[in-house]
Amino acid sequence: MTPQLARASLREIQRPVAVELEGVHDELRRLIAVDFPRIAEVNEHLLRMKGKLFRPTLLLLSHQAVGGGDGRVATLAAVVELIHLATLVHDDSVDHSVRRRGLPTINALFSHQVAVIMGDYLYSRAIIELVGLGDPEPLRILARVTNDMTVGEMRELEAHDKLAFDEADYDALILAKTASLLSGACEVGARGAAAPQRAALARFGLALGRAFQITDDLLDYTQSEAVTGKPSGLDLREHKVTLPLIAALGRMSAAERVVVARLMATADPSPALVAEVVALVDRAGGLAYAKARALEFAAQADAELDALPPSAARDALRDSIAYAVERRS
Amino acid sequence: MTPQLARASLREIQRPVAVELEGVHDELRRLIAVDFPRIAEVNEHLLRMKGKLFRPTLLLLSHQAVGGGDGRVATLAAVVELIHLATLVHDDSVDHSVRRRGLPTINALFSHQVAVIMGDYLYSRAIIELVGLGDPEPLRILARVTNDMTVGEMRELEAHDKLAFDEADYDALILAKTASLLSGACEVGARGAAAPQRAALARFGLALGRAFQITDDLLDYTQSEAVTGKPSGLDLREHKVTLPLIAALGRMSAAERVVVARLMATADPSPALVAEVVALVDRAGGLAYAKARALEFAAQADAELDALPPSAARDALRDSIAYAVERRS
Repeated sequence: MTPQLARASLREIQRPVAVELEGVHDELRRLIAVDFPRIAEVNEHLLRMKGKLFRPTLLLLSHQAVGGGDGRVATLAAVVELIHLATLVHDDSVDHSVRRRGLPTINALFSHQVAVIMGDYLYSRAIIELVGLGDPEPLRILARVTNDMTVGEMRELEAHDKLAFDEADYDALILAKTASLLSGACEVGARGAAAPQRAALARFGLALGRAFQITDDLLDYTQSEAVTGKPSGLDLREHKVTLPLIAALGRMSAAERVVVARLMATADPSPALVAEVVALVDRAGGLAYAKARALEFAAQADAELDALPPSAARDALRDSIAYAVERRS
Repeated sequence: MTPQLARASLREIQRPVAVELEGVHDELRRLIAVDFPRIAEVNEHLLRMKGKLFRPTLLLLSHQAVGGGDGRVATLAAVVELIHLATLVHDDSVDHSVRRRGLPTINALFSHQVAVIMGDYLYSRAIIELVGLGDPEPLRILARVTNDMTVGEMRELEAHDKLAFDEADYDALILAKTASLLSGACEVGARGAAAPQRAALARFGLALGRAFQITDDLLDYTQSEAVTGKPSGLDLREHKVTLPLIAALGRMSAAERVVVARLMATADPSPALVAEVVALVDRAGGLAYAKARALEFAAQADAELDALPPSAARDALRDSIAYAVERRS
C-alpha cells in the first residue's frame, strides 16, 4: 500500500489526542520549573520555541492506537519533548546556529556556555522524571535513544567536507539522529501493548523518521527562508553532505563534480556558487532520488500500521506519514 | 573532633579497596566501548586523562564501611567516574580550558563540537548502565546529582565579574557543582545500609565536597602551574570570584577594592595585576579565612563518620578528609 499523499495538517493529526496534548503543555511547564532565575529565563524562551509537539503527538497516538489507558502518558510525552529540546539546544550550539523556528537560539540569545549547560539541565530533568515514574521501560528505551542520538551527532560532524560520505553513512546518520527518537516515542507510547504491535510501532517510527529527515534535507535544497525559518542551501553553504548531493554525485560529469569540490573547498561560498550546485544536484536527479527514497520509507511506515486495529489514532498515524513527507517546512 | 591533618596519600586511602578499583578500571573501559571510530579515539584520550578515581574510591570505601557485599559496586563506581568525566568534558568546553591534568582537553585536542557531543555520549552511557542494573536507587540519586551539577555550572557562570557574589552564593555554587557528586558517590556506596548510616555518609560527602572545592579554589591562589597542571591565579585572570576574594573584599580598604575592580574591568589582566590582587587577598586574610572554612567542613565530615563502626574503610574515609584539605594539587 502506498501512503496517502494528500497533505495532512498537524492539527488534524493531533485531533484524536487534543486533550492529552493540553496536558503535555502543562507537564512540560511543570518539568522545567526551577527556582534559579537564569535557568527560568532560558526556559521561558524554550517554551516559546518548542514547536509543534510532533514527537509527543506520535507517542500519544501510538498509545491510543494500542488501546490507551496509561495515566502517565502526558508526562511521558512531555519527557520526550524535553529530550528533544535538550538535543536541539546542544545541536544549535554545536552547529553555531543562530535561529530556530524563527526565534534566536539559546547560544545566540544567551551564550554558548548557557546552551551547553541548559542542554544538560533539560536532559537530567527528563531522567529525574523518568526515574520518578517507577517504570524502567521508558527509561530503558529513551536512554538508548539519547545515546544513539549522540552517535548520530558525531556522524553528522563527519558528514562535512567529505564527498566520500555515502548513502550508507547518511542512512546510519539519520537513523541515529532523527529516526531513533521518533521510534522511541512510538515504542514508549505502545509499551503496554502486545510485543508484535509494540515492535511494529517501533519500526513505524524508524521508517517515519527516515522519511522525515530526508524530507528535511530536501527542504534545505528547495524551500525559501521565508517558509522554513532558516536560509535555503544552508547545508551546502556549511559543506554538509546530505542525500540529494550524495545521490547526484554518482551521476555527475567530472566537470560538474569539480564545481561541487570547489564549493567544499570554499570557506564561505557565495550564494551564486550555492545556487549553481543546487541546480547541478537537481539536474543530476539528486532531488528526485531523495524524494523517491522518502516515499519508500513512507510506504514502509504505512505498511507497519497494518498490524494495528482500525482506529482514529491509527488513521492519524497514517496522516502523520503524509505530513512528514509532504510538509513545506 | 578535629580532622587528622597529617597529609594522606591517595594510594594509602585506596588500599582497602585496591582490588575493587582494578575492577573499576575494567568497568570503565567496558562502559565506553563503542564501534564508532571517532568516539573510540576520544575515549582513549579520556582514559589517559581520567585521574585518580577519587569519587569511585569514596563510593567503594562507603560501601565497605557499611558492610559491603554488593557485587555491582565496581560498576556503580565506574558509572560515577563516567558522570564525572562527562561533566569535566562539558566544563572544559564551557570554560574554553585547554589543559586538564597535564593533557590537552577534548575541546582543545578535537573541537568544541566533539566535546559537547562526547559529554552527552558519556552521560547517556552512564544512564544506560544504571538502567541495566535494575535498581532504581542509584539512578534516582545520580539523576538528582547531575541535575544539581548543571545548576551549579549555571551559578558558576554568574560568578564572573561580579563583586556582589557573596559567600552564600559561593556556598550554593560549590554544593551543587562539587559536593553533590561526592555526596552522591558516598550515598550510592552506602545505599544498602540502615538509613542513619546512609544519611551520615551522604552528609559526610557534602561536607567533604565543600572542603575539597574550597581547597581547590585556594590552590588556584597559592600553587604554581608546575604542581597543579594549570596556571596559578587563573580564576582571577578569568574574573572568577571564589571564597578567598569574597572573604577578603569585606576587609579591604576602598583603595584596595579599586585595584580588584580594575582587574575585573580588564579583559586580559597582566600577571603583575593578578599578582597584586593575590597579595591583597592574602593581606586581607582571604586565604586564611578560606583555609579555616575548609577545616570547618573537614571537621563536620569527620564527625559524620562517628556514625559508622570502626573499620579500615572508615579510617580511609577519615584520611580522605586530610587528603581533600591538605593536597597540593
